[in-house]
Amino acid sequence: MTAMLNKQHVTIVGTGLLGASLGCALKHRGFAGKIVGVGRREATLADAKSVGAIDEGVTDLLAVLPETDLLVLAVPLSGFEALFTKIAGHEHDKLVITDVGSTKVSVQAAAERSLQRPELFVGAHPMAGSEKQGPQAADAMLFEGKPCIVCPTSAHDTQTGKQAVEAVASLFRAVGMHILTMTPAEHDLQTAVTSHLPHATSAMLIQTAIELGGWAVASTGFQSATRLASSNPPMRRDIMLSNRDALIQAIDAMGEQMQTLKTLLENGDGEGIEKLLEQSKQCREQWVDSRSTDQNGSCS
Amino acid sequence: MTAMLNKQHVTIVGTGLLGASLGCALKHRGFAGKIVGVGRREATLADAKSVGAIDEGVTDLLAVLPETDLLVLAVPLSGFEALFTKIAGHEHDKLVITDVGSTKVSVQAAAERSLQRPELFVGAHPMAGSEKQGPQAADAMLFEGKPCIVCPTSAHDTQTGKQAVEAVASLFRAVGMHILTMTPAEHDLQTAVTSHLPHATSAMLIQTAIELGGWAVASTGFQSATRLASSNPPMRRDIMLSNRDALIQAIDAMGEQMQTLKTLLENGDGEGIEKLLEQSKQCREQWVDSRSTDQNGSCS
Repeated sequence: MTAMLNKQHVTIVGTGLLGASLGCALKHRGFAGKIVGVGRREATLADAKSVGAIDEGVTDLLAVLPETDLLVLAVPLSGFEALFTKIAGHEHDKLVITDVGSTKVSVQAAAERSLQRPELFVGAHPMAGSEKQGPQAADAMLFEGKPCIVCPTSAHDTQTGKQAVEAVASLFRAVGMHILTMTPAEHDLQTAVTSHLPHATSAMLIQTAIELGGWAVASTGFQSATRLASSNPPMRRDIMLSNRDALIQAIDAMGEQMQTLKTLLENGDGEGIEKLLEQSKQCREQWVDSRSTDQNGSCS
Repeated sequence: MTAMLNKQHVTIVGTGLLGASLGCALKHRGFAGKIVGVGRREATLADAKSVGAIDEGVTDLLAVLPETDLLVLAVPLSGFEALFTKIAGHEHDKLVITDVGSTKVSVQAAAERSLQRPELFVGAHPMAGSEKQGPQAADAMLFEGKPCIVCPTSAHDTQTGKQAVEAVASLFRAVGMHILTMTPAEHDLQTAVTSHLPHATSAMLIQTAIELGGWAVASTGFQSATRLASSNPPMRRDIMLSNRDALIQAIDAMGEQMQTLKTLLENGDGEGIEKLLEQSKQCREQWVDSRSTDQNGSCS
């Protein structure tokens, strides 16, 4: 942990699983500054305090904003617009703002629309999660060894902006994450392809079985291919809507791939089908192997 | 095991994983008849004999056909046409023929095209398998507790046909399977939806990532959604081609479901998206629960 971070006043808005885990992770690593949790419900804040995630819980963000160095917004995607509007006009020189949202273009846009000093906000997506929810499921090791995508924009080309990016990277490095940097648009397209699209295909495989049948013969293959369909619907709805354009692009690309396969089938082109399946298999296995070695998956 | 089955002469053509496992499974349960393996390679037959799957291995099917009561064709889907052509004209009154192929319409059609007495053939799909291959991976418990789809047709409305269906059901019951009965067309559509389509979407998710990127941020969700893309390409190519019409129907239905989701996204219809995701989640979980209790999955 950097000396600068270690002395800071960190405020976490939203002390659900991610927010509370971040607090626990910092304290677990000896963070000597202060952590304040902000939430609407006193009970949730009390829970976050009891698990050691925060030193103090408050319901009024603006009351603690002046003394905050690092503000982490760990709220659902639908909550950002209102938060940025509230913060606007209360920014100060030593403030840096980040978030943990699953999509980045819409959050970045909301920041630029509402904040008076958008260069203070640097979007982040710590790629860690759990099926569990709430502060009582907080896990100090949740972020350990996982990637965190940090998304600077041209607004961060200034000295202040660069410092903000470095402060945010330091925060997530401090809890054990390795940092990947890309633009909000790159982030959203990449996660659309490898996270939101697979969720969509899982759910639509279920819908296809509802329409055409097959439950009696469905087996472990169907179970793994549809695992993501069991994800939390309201959270997934928010992510889908928040990442609408990239997800539509991914759905269209996937649709074209399926059409390619369908044409090969119609033509009875066994060689073409085998080549496509062979490439897919090799590429997947290369990616799985690269994940296990350097934690930065690739296929090329 | 029925008394009749127990005294029979069973001939298994193809002593790979499934054929050899069937032999081992019968012997494991005290089968007192004779099991002959038929194959092209002496070495494979010797392996099958050494693991106890067969009593004897021969390369000439027609030499053992006259004494065979139950002929099991455990060959790749591409091998059926030639086999039925070879058998044609050598059928006899006590012969019953079945198979273990993953699709049923094309196998049934090949039987009806070539055999002189197609009522002696009853298609079956024991839904058991392994990533392993070859007789040395034979497993006497491979079929235990799994479903076997048996596919009678109108050709089996005769007394002989009914006896053939019962003989085939008895064989797979004897190795621990529970029997589901449906037409070849029903079988192929149901497996297209819950086995061949999920394999296709897994492979095309990989192709979409090859096209648009996303490897660096891809995680466990992408890994499980694409697991089936690591299946054996030549085998999958054969299955796809063999079940072409049903798979195209499933691809089209899936494409329409994806379009429905895309339209909801374009309209920003959060309520509609959540309803669709909620139904998918509930339906999947109901099916998973039903699998664990009665082994006959359902969602309704």
